[in-house]
Amino acid sequence: MVTISVIGCGRIGRMHLRNIAGCGGARLGPICDPYAADIEGLARDYGVAAVESAEAIFLDSSVDAILVASATETHAAYIEAGVKAGKAVFCEKPIDLDLERVDACAAAIAGLGGVVQLGFNRRFDPGHRAAFEALRGGEVGALHQVVITSRDPEMPPRSYVESAGGLLRDMTIHDFDLARFFLGEEPEEVFAVGNALIDPELGEELGDFDTAMILLRCADGKQCCINNSRTAVYGYDQRVELLGERGMLVSGNRRAHEMRRFGGAETERGEPYLYFFIERYGEAFVAELEAFVGCVRDGARPEVGFEDGRRALVLAEAAYRSIKEGRLVRVDEIS
Amino acid sequence: MVTISVIGCGRIGRMHLRNIAGCGGARLGPICDPYAADIEGLARDYGVAAVESAEAIFLDSSVDAILVASATETHAAYIEAGVKAGKAVFCEKPIDLDLERVDACAAAIAGLGGVVQLGFNRRFDPGHRAAFEALRGGEVGALHQVVITSRDPEMPPRSYVESAGGLLRDMTIHDFDLARFFLGEEPEEVFAVGNALIDPELGEELGDFDTAMILLRCADGKQCCINNSRTAVYGYDQRVELLGERGMLVSGNRRAHEMRRFGGAETERGEPYLYFFIERYGEAFVAELEAFVGCVRDGARPEVGFEDGRRALVLAEAAYRSIKEGRLVRVDEIS
Amino acid sequence: MVTISVIGCGRIGRMHLRNIAGCGGARLGPICDPYAADIEGLARDYGVAAVESAEAIFLDSSVDAILVASATETHAAYIEAGVKAGKAVFCEKPIDLDLERVDACAAAIAGLGGVVQLGFNRRFDPGHRAAFEALRGGEVGALHQVVITSRDPEMPPRSYVESAGGLLRDMTIHDFDLARFFLGEEPEEVFAVGNALIDPELGEELGDFDTAMILLRCADGKQCCINNSRTAVYGYDQRVELLGERGMLVSGNRRAHEMRRFGGAETERGEPYLYFFIERYGEAFVAELEAFVGCVRDGARPEVGFEDGRRALVLAEAAYRSIKEGRLVRVDEIS
Amino acid sequence: MVTISVIGCGRIGRMHLRNIAGCGGARLGPICDPYAADIEGLARDYGVAAVESAEAIFLDSSVDAILVASATETHAAYIEAGVKAGKAVFCEKPIDLDLERVDACAAAIAGLGGVVQLGFNRRFDPGHRAAFEALRGGEVGALHQVVITSRDPEMPPRSYVESAGGLLRDMTIHDFDLARFFLGEEPEEVFAVGNALIDPELGEELGDFDTAMILLRCADGKQCCINNSRTAVYGYDQRVELLGERGMLVSGNRRAHEMRRFGGAETERGEPYLYFFIERYGEAFVAELEAFVGCVRDGARPEVGFEDGRRALVLAEAAYRSIKEGRLVRVDEIS
Repeated sequence: MVTISVIGCGRIGRMHLRNIAGCGGARLGPICDPYAADIEGLARDYGVAAVESAEAIFLDSSVDAILVASATETHAAYIEAGVKAGKAVFCEKPIDLDLERVDACAAAIAGLGGVVQLGFNRRFDPGHRAAFEALRGGEVGALHQVVITSRDPEMPPRSYVESAGGLLRDMTIHDFDLARFFLGEEPEEVFAVGNALIDPELGEELGDFDTAMILLRCADGKQCCINNSRTAVYGYDQRVELLGERGMLVSGNRRAHEMRRFGGAETERGEPYLYFFIERYGEAFVAELEAFVGCVRDGARPEVGFEDGRRALVLAEAAYRSIKEGRLVRVDEIS
Repeated sequence: MVTISVIGCGRIGRMHLRNIAGCGGARLGPICDPYAADIEGLARDYGVAAVESAEAIFLDSSVDAILVASATETHAAYIEAGVKAGKAVFCEKPIDLDLERVDACAAAIAGLGGVVQLGFNRRFDPGHRAAFEALRGGEVGALHQVVITSRDPEMPPRSYVESAGGLLRDMTIHDFDLARFFLGEEPEEVFAVGNALIDPELGEELGDFDTAMILLRCADGKQCCINNSRTAVYGYDQRVELLGERGMLVSGNRRAHEMRRFGGAETERGEPYLYFFIERYGEAFVAELEAFVGCVRDGARPEVGFEDGRRALVLAEAAYRSIKEGRLVRVDEIS
Repeated sequence: MVTISVIGCGRIGRMHLRNIAGCGGARLGPICDPYAADIEGLARDYGVAAVESAEAIFLDSSVDAILVASATETHAAYIEAGVKAGKAVFCEKPIDLDLERVDACAAAIAGLGGVVQLGFNRRFDPGHRAAFEALRGGEVGALHQVVITSRDPEMPPRSYVESAGGLLRDMTIHDFDLARFFLGEEPEEVFAVGNALIDPELGEELGDFDTAMILLRCADGKQCCINNSRTAVYGYDQRVELLGERGMLVSGNRRAHEMRRFGGAETERGEPYLYFFIERYGEAFVAELEAFVGCVRDGARPEVGFEDGRRALVLAEAAYRSIKEGRLVRVDEIS
Repeated sequence: MVTISVIGCGRIGRMHLRNIAGCGGARLGPICDPYAADIEGLARDYGVAAVESAEAIFLDSSVDAILVASATETHAAYIEAGVKAGKAVFCEKPIDLDLERVDACAAAIAGLGGVVQLGFNRRFDPGHRAAFEALRGGEVGALHQVVITSRDPEMPPRSYVESAGGLLRDMTIHDFDLARFFLGEEPEEVFAVGNALIDPELGEELGDFDTAMILLRCADGKQCCINNSRTAVYGYDQRVELLGERGMLVSGNRRAHEMRRFGGAETERGEPYLYFFIERYGEAFVAELEAFVGCVRDGARPEVGFEDGRRALVLAEAAYRSIKEGRLVRVDEIS
């Protein structure tokens, strides 16, 4: 059994708590969240200790691994401390909003052989995964185009937006990782446009966007388009389309059930798509945890690690530069 | 070129006029409809003569074939006269509402070697036909169950219902033919229930039904269910489902286009299905005509002929007896 | 917290174990299965006691409820013992294969005020439930036709078939309950045909069927058709179609994910449907348990109780009589 | 009746011949194609004259309109001659591959008040049109993103590619027009990437592309992405997706019929999409002709005219410049 402590018990941390509790090969260790008022009750519900500081977790020899779901600005420090303490680390994205800090973190853990997995859950979605496997299995031949549609159901609160680091570092970062996952090699060039169409004040006050299109291109000419929006009123819109020389693979959206309505003005009308990431990627969150537990148990390298977190951020930086300068940016201008 | 005269130029006759005019191997001959006020104008539009009585058509040696789209009670007489005059006959369903009259008609044309095709258009629908071919090609192995859904978009006018001969002879007759088409052998047993749920007065005053379920079974145990209703507000509902030992084939409905709506309360909401038979089976009406023209040209036996018209009526009679007596009726009790 | 003991820890019992363990308001009590070799290990995994006989559970005052997932022939006795011991009872279907035994059980628990819920899980499927709620909410007006498609992915082992009581008592019993659920009143008449098409020896040796169509009709003329097969190679086929005067509601099948393939010979090709009841009705099994826990906690009457189990069996008996006598059977001939 | 002569009777010209012959308000005039060996037979089939040179058509006072379906390099001259001769002109796209020639043509017909309609048939596709009308009707609120997928089923012959003017002027030109149609205003900025992935020699020898992604942006920030490929083996892939603040509209692909296959490895597997433009846009070709006939009859301005043809070409030029210079190009740099 792998004992995992959770640091940061907000909404996503609590989901991880449940998943760890229900995971066959894992057991929950002490949990920590100085900002969660009900942390004691939460610990009681799961029959574990609540500790006041993460330090206690790093010192606890019964803990094999930590799951970092705290505020973004603490991620890098916890990764460093966890790796130095010999704990395997599962860290929610992003490593940090600042590439220099990410590089410093990389330097700090270099050579320590730590197991670090990044929370790019979408790679573990059953539909996206099936598309990936069909692609790698050669079903559609050489890949030519990737189209990723990624739209949130509604704008997050202004307070969230203010601290999230901008659309491309907060939301598109998942799509950058997904693009790398499917492309199977590093994109060489990035072009992006971003606008504040849903909330124009967002653009004026924060310089942020809520609507974006990003093109990526690899050295061999493979093309990828990412379509982002902060508001898809019909539900969390998460699609991947892979065009190959011999076919196409499409991973589509899910609904809570398959009931359809037919009436005088409609046929096959379905419910809105599953509301948001907790619902849509519920199975993916479980699967990424199981993969992590397997890596910790077997000492294996996680499929999606620190460097993947860094690479996604580099693409975000390249996209921001592209928006600023109105040109195709080479990724190696950034990294 | 095959010259075809149309007898009966109401709604369905006019559709056949257009199809004959647009058919590569056919040419329109004189037309006849004593009840159509604008028959002269219609003839002018198509550049043909309008004759006052069908007799003139039977005597016209330039006419190769007649298409009978007149009132049901005239069908058998036109078939007899047409065959005796050496014309190929395409007759809209049914041959007659009365089985004895059908048998008399059969006797009258026996041995004359006439080409008679019945207007069971659904066999020629591209989707139903593709299902038929996949089935005969062995794609799903032995056939076990057939489910035919057949629902009109709305109740016909009372005047139509009064003279149509009852739901099973008027509407289900198409489904009986379709069942025979897919089953590939004669059903041996029939069971049916019928109710007047949409228009209860229909039941009280005319003893007719608007909602029915009919089971058919072949000697080898193959089963077929037909679901009928006079009102499907979401459009003409015409589906066939073929369950075989190694798979299923489903021929579904069509819409005018593939536009889908997504909103706060819906995803993938489509338009209502194509409204009725003129729209839904438009391609089938063209294809059955082309098949007829081919038979006339080549002296071939039509795929769907007089005996098919008779067999479908026998099944309707068996179904009525089943409803009356509340039991499984053997088809050979009727025929 | 409601403490629930599980009696019978085979495949379906183990699924219930997991669901009880993961259910917010419930806690697992001692478990019992004299035929499960690994019952001790199972108990250890869940941190509960394994008792040798169900008697110990009935005597255990800490146990609020029992979940009966043992062999069918023991169900009625456990229901009686459970109710007499003051335990709420959740019993897998059927109560018994023999209607007299069911009636004796009813008599034995009459007046004791016990909470008994039957495992007709399909009522709790999110899609079927959404269709039910839309129907009851009046979205399609008066109900006219119900079509239930219910096909297993493959034939069960011969040993299972031999003891299962026949297709209609074993498999269709779920559909009879679902029909009653949607019809909203008792069917008055039943007609059925059954054949052994997949495994003809089944018919010859056991007199059982693997392929059936059953019609039900209510006093007001509402019609219902159930299509059953023991083999749908494309996955567990579980559909409900509700035709009303103002529209149609359809609850369809689910796949493990929404990946579709497009190639030279295909478009939108999906995976087979979820394999079987454990997968397809996974959410329904959880939801029925939650409903049961709520009833135990609140002393409420379960939505689906003993009488529902009895009614479904009565419909099965009526269907068998219909097959034997080739006629429409009135349900009150049985009950 | 509007009399229309066809100039250029190759594949697309013949389709227009059929459509004119079948169009209620139109009549075919003399036809002309010096390169069609069977032009006499073709004329006989339609009962019209075949003339040796288009000049005869311009001089024929019984001809109201010409439909230009000849080689691209002749389009502009025929438009000029037609307008000067007082004929309404329906011209297949593009006006010319050279923007200067287009501008010269514009100057030549300026002030003559001619009726000129461009063959941007996709605007008349029932699905795209329904999406357009729902959008303009306000169903999804303000438009934020447009995604146009446009992929041919297979590479055209090398000879075609060599003379077609490049992917963006030949194929994407339709998508540029469609983008303008949906955006409802002129895009201000263009960015594009193009690669020769299907036929790398195409790139090396002709400098052309077979795979492209193009971004367009309007002054108000609306974004549009066009995804092009010369090879979609699953059929002609023609989709439009419109994301608005209050919903999404999607116009999808069509198949020849709605038959779906279900088997051990698949569910709901459909046929490939309709093969190519003749099949997919068959209804659109008819509808654009009817619209043209209406304009000629009523002296109305065509919905899609000369300036639309020019605007689409300007976008193609901007996209080529973007590819060459690797930057966002302002459309007014070109026009």
